[in-house]
Amino acid sequence: MEKVFASIITIGDELLIGQVIDTNSAWIARELNKRGMPVKNRVAVGDNRDDIWQALDNECGRASLVLITGGLGPTADDITKPLLADYFGGKMVIHETTLQHVIHLFESVFKRPVSDRNKKQAEVPDSCTVLFNESGTAPGMLFEKNGTVFISMPGVPHEMKWLMEHHVLPMISSRFATGFIAHRTLLTAGIGESMLADLIADLEADLPGWIKLAYLPNYGMVRLRLTASGMDKDLIERELSRHFDLLVSRTAEYLVAAEDIPLELAIGRLLQEKGKTMATAESCTGGYIAHLITAHAGSSAYYKGTVVSYANDVKEHALHVKPETLAAFGAVSEDTVREMVQGTLSLIGSDYAVAVSGIMGPDGGTPEKPVGMVWIAAGNAEKTIARQFRLRFDRQKNIEVTAVYALNLLRLLILEKS
Amino acid sequence: MEKVFASIITIGDELLIGQVIDTNSAWIARELNKRGMPVKNRVAVGDNRDDIWQALDNECGRASLVLITGGLGPTADDITKPLLADYFGGKMVIHETTLQHVIHLFESVFKRPVSDRNKKQAEVPDSCTVLFNESGTAPGMLFEKNGTVFISMPGVPHEMKWLMEHHVLPMISSRFATGFIAHRTLLTAGIGESMLADLIADLEADLPGWIKLAYLPNYGMVRLRLTASGMDKDLIERELSRHFDLLVSRTAEYLVAAEDIPLELAIGRLLQEKGKTMATAESCTGGYIAHLITAHAGSSAYYKGTVVSYANDVKEHALHVKPETLAAFGAVSEDTVREMVQGTLSLIGSDYAVAVSGIMGPDGGTPEKPVGMVWIAAGNAEKTIARQFRLRFDRQKNIEVTAVYALNLLRLLILEKS
Repeated sequence: MEKVFASIITIGDELLIGQVIDTNSAWIARELNKRGMPVKNRVAVGDNRDDIWQALDNECGRASLVLITGGLGPTADDITKPLLADYFGGKMVIHETTLQHVIHLFESVFKRPVSDRNKKQAEVPDSCTVLFNESGTAPGMLFEKNGTVFISMPGVPHEMKWLMEHHVLPMISSRFATGFIAHRTLLTAGIGESMLADLIADLEADLPGWIKLAYLPNYGMVRLRLTASGMDKDLIERELSRHFDLLVSRTAEYLVAAEDIPLELAIGRLLQEKGKTMATAESCTGGYIAHLITAHAGSSAYYKGTVVSYANDVKEHALHVKPETLAAFGAVSEDTVREMVQGTLSLIGSDYAVAVSGIMGPDGGTPEKPVGMVWIAAGNAEKTIARQFRLRFDRQKNIEVTAVYALNLLRLLILEKS
Repeated sequence: MEKVFASIITIGDELLIGQVIDTNSAWIARELNKRGMPVKNRVAVGDNRDDIWQALDNECGRASLVLITGGLGPTADDITKPLLADYFGGKMVIHETTLQHVIHLFESVFKRPVSDRNKKQAEVPDSCTVLFNESGTAPGMLFEKNGTVFISMPGVPHEMKWLMEHHVLPMISSRFATGFIAHRTLLTAGIGESMLADLIADLEADLPGWIKLAYLPNYGMVRLRLTASGMDKDLIERELSRHFDLLVSRTAEYLVAAEDIPLELAIGRLLQEKGKTMATAESCTGGYIAHLITAHAGSSAYYKGTVVSYANDVKEHALHVKPETLAAFGAVSEDTVREMVQGTLSLIGSDYAVAVSGIMGPDGGTPEKPVGMVWIAAGNAEKTIARQFRLRFDRQKNIEVTAVYALNLLRLLILEKS
């Protein structure tokens, strides 16, 4: 094989009828890329013998590594496992350690009787190396054919991730000639991709050929990722750090984090450093900002809560926005979001608060206040700042973009940059 | 070609490095399946000429319809469009209507100068039928080769959907021999897949061969979908209705909706029918329930807001949970969620409220209150009901499942079934 690369085959009818969105492939691709193993091809096929066979055949002898997910559940494995035995040779045998694990799971954890169908999960072709799956009943299986390594894993995300983390990822660098690879990522906000490219043009031009720069834009934020690869680990780490530090100081004005973390976590760290807390007051985002923040374990250290005031009387009663303000300027106005911030600070008792009010669409716009108009305010006991934005997306994306703008305005306030 | 089926090819490096989760394919697959066009194969390839060519060749003469998304942005189309011209024949020409549309978008909507690169979006191979794209700059293109219809669309979700809805989906039944197809879906909650299968076993056995039943389970809810296909539209509609009505009456006890809508919308309709409003009080779900509800346009008609009391003092100050209750029973307790419901009703002034408090993990559990323990209460001015649940998933999934259980408890209260 000339070049090392992987392919991903996803098995399951549920992917072909659109019942399930495939998040496994993106996760696998990201982890493999981090380790210098590019993914060339991703295929999804149904629980159909000919289609699975064809997908295996397309990759055999071509890809270095083929990761197969799905097709191993207690009802679907009637197709996939016998097929794997036929394709790679061998006969079905019971894997004793897996069988004991399945019995243990049913008897001690699920507290249900273990059926013959459940026990069959421990059957594997004897041509495979079993990758023990502590997180579920179906084991991983490793096969080799024509120089290609095939690994079959269950499609349940947490089981797939367990097998990847404990078996597959650790073998990548030892088994395949990927060399050494390292990444550094920084996150910027408030500057567009093309302006950012202008700002760092000379630094980008100075990068050696073995350090690549990627722009990863996402709603008013851009991630910059440096990837260095080669055989000399010391040289790679030294030069990668040097070039990364240059990028960090050049982009200082827009820098959210000099590592690969989301905006809401960067704000969490900032608050924890200062020993401060925050709260939110959401109208049009309907709890999405709170959900973003609380999706991270440990957020209770700095996040106190939100009031989603979807109705105007909640803005009045819970957040003490003045009826005169709502009457004179409306719910989507600078005065309203400023009063929402102050009301939240006093109701929730946090050090900082951020408030949003806007029209997310598709309906509800007026000529004066069209769909996409959003007011955002961030404040503490001393100071409140407010900004207006005009968004042009659909409802869901308008909500997501508003959350980013609101969090970034709060970040600027905490940093006293605004 | 013996059998009508479609394949999906997704083009873009961002899919192979895992930067983007492919939601387009699931949407396309769902819409095609609804119209009797099964999807056999989904492939993702990078912005690489050989790989795209190979993907086209694999489907040519095999699939009836190949839908291609991506590879048409102003920077990526240097690869895809010339390749399409080579693969299907023809030379590049300017599509005048598209050019005028691109110029109009830049001058009147984006209010930015239109560059030569932008104008190139109007270039297409003269071997294609252009599918005009009102929602963006890159047009759709339809090609035919060896009896297979290929349609290339931009990867931006709202542009792809616009082209599908205005050009592609309307041509499915006329262009391909899919016959007539119809679906009816119902949503149940509070009964597992296997118990549901027992409950309707005789009805399922009575279905004619041309009506298929699918179980679509998702966290304590199961959708049942009947799909009927054939040539006699009247017969199909009559028999489908008859069998569907039988399922509806048999599952009445667990029925959430006799149509394909999510739980939160079913509750919204119920509230609107009764002229009532609701609010939420969220601790461990951190705003996710509010986000689910407000993701739907029009939810302000029945949804008034939420208080996310992530910190205990917010439960006391905003929701008037008694300090003695928190001290005696803790935040994750029946008494606390009951008081949260009452506090929310008086703070927000809604007719109904639902409150949740639990430990979502991965940390924060104790032997007495382990990770996954959740208390949920739903109430109105007269009555409050509470339930305890034990969840076994990761943090994200625990949050999602809690939301479903909370909404369903509220639904049962509104229906006076609990």
